Amino acid sequence: MFNERTSIKQVEEGSELSPKFNKDGYIPVVTTDVKTGNLLMHAYMNAEAFKLTILKGEAHYYSRSRKCIWHKGDTSGFVQKVNQILIDDDQDCVWLKVTVAGGASCHVGYKSCFYREIKTDGDNIKLVFTEQEKVFDPDEVYGDAPNPTIL
Amino acid sequence: MFNERTSIKQVEEGSELSPKFNKDGYIPVVTTDVKTGNLLMHAYMNAEAFKLTILKGEAHYYSRSRKCIWHKGDTSGFVQKVNQILIDDDQDCVWLKVTVAGGASCHVGYKSCFYREIKTDGDNIKLVFTEQEKVFDPDEVYGDAPNPTIL
Repeated sequence: MFNERTSIKQVEEGSELSPKFNKDGYIPVVTTDVKTGNLLMHAYMNAEAFKLTILKGEAHYYSRSRKCIWHKGDTSGFVQKVNQILIDDDQDCVWLKVTVAGGASCHVGYKSCFYREIKTDGDNIKLVFTEQEKVFDPDEVYGDAPNPTIL
Repeated sequence: MFNERTSIKQVEEGSELSPKFNKDGYIPVVTTDVKTGNLLMHAYMNAEAFKLTILKGEAHYYSRSRKCIWHKGDTSGFVQKVNQILIDDDQDCVWLKVTVAGGASCHVGYKSCFYREIKTDGDNIKLVFTEQEKVFDPDEVYGDAPNPTIL
């Protein structure tokens, strides 16, 4: 499914899919809501997750904390149906445009993982919430599953 | 400017900026056009580039190929004015909403780095261009500078 990377021209200007996985075997993925354009999440895929996403039309990632393929929505029900997949110039990043069942993509309970804005007055910096209400209660949805956030 | 990461609650639900840089010292950055919502590029910042972006209001990245701080637009003139900076739940990814002088963000000459869509009929996969025209000629803008794409 993936082609070898043979030249800059092939990678940047060609029509062959030749993704570059990093030294750990991952490629970063940017996922946006196809209707609103909102950035929902940033995650990673390994080659297997990338293939599954293309073939099944639902977002599959690689969970670096759980070290396994992660079919988004398996636990929460918030499956991401893939509307469009794009790749960048040097083919080391993937952009998924998706439709989210249930409308939430963040394990904390918000629609988007990016629910805080960085504000500064020049001296001080603080985070200000841009989403006020959680869409779901993560305790109810995930129960005792370990939190994926790593300190 | 950056706080220590002391608990999941602080990182996910707090108002302190406590970014997580990866083992190489980078944090991934998703950059979108503030007007169109279009994904322009995916890059990385180190701590210094992140501070410069916050303080100066223009996108600064870390170039992994050139191994230096990269004030976007220094060569091309296509500076990215930062309208909003957001951070994700576990604070290991940054979202910049920007206004681009000149309207292009891709070194190949396109508006967005994501100018190709992945299409499949189930058996074959190919990339289809979503942008038809380059905004600028990279040879004229960059001259003999080495291409940042790594095979």
